[in-house]
Amino acid sequence: MPTIVVDVMPKAELLDPQGKATTGALARLGHEKFENVRIGKRFEFQVAGEVTDAVLDEVRQVADDILSNGVIEDVVAISVDGAPVADALAGEAR
Amino acid sequence: MPTIVVDVMPKAELLDPQGKATTGALARLGHEKFENVRIGKRFEFQVAGEVTDAVLDEVRQVADDILSNGVIEDVVAISVDGAPVADALAGEAR
Repeated sequence: MPTIVVDVMPKAELLDPQGKATTGALARLGHEKFENVRIGKRFEFQVAGEVTDAVLDEVRQVADDILSNGVIEDVVAISVDGAPVADALAGEAR
Repeated sequence: MPTIVVDVMPKAELLDPQGKATTGALARLGHEKFENVRIGKRFEFQVAGEVTDAVLDEVRQVADDILSNGVIEDVVAISVDGAPVADALAGEAR
């Protein structure tokens, strides 16, 4: 079954306290060269049957409406079996 | 500055209650075709200076030791500016 991956990140203009804490921890542990850590979510799921354009539209809709909170998060990437899907941000452009 | 992305997922053999709940919610909302949702983390950070082999080794070490919990999670991918880094799972093979 095809595997779909949806990546969701906190919006760039928002503070990410989790990421800030991780940046600080890395610095304290001697990894000062890594900066501006931001932590998002990665959803992996299988889809029954073939991935048609209609299924991709449904994936985009689910990513925008259910898997992410549009107020504080952006869907940054959608891929099918490792291949990026163009127009992953269709929901924003609409 | 180069952007590094580290993807961490719960190990395949472990139950992912968050993902199970999401699978159930999708089905209840009419998206039955999406199955076996698993939810992991996506870390994005910048690195000061050039990404040399030594820096990549440090990234792998940080991914294995700090960004993921090896008991329950796997580092599934590391990429630099969108290009996958081979041997992302070096920590496991060592």
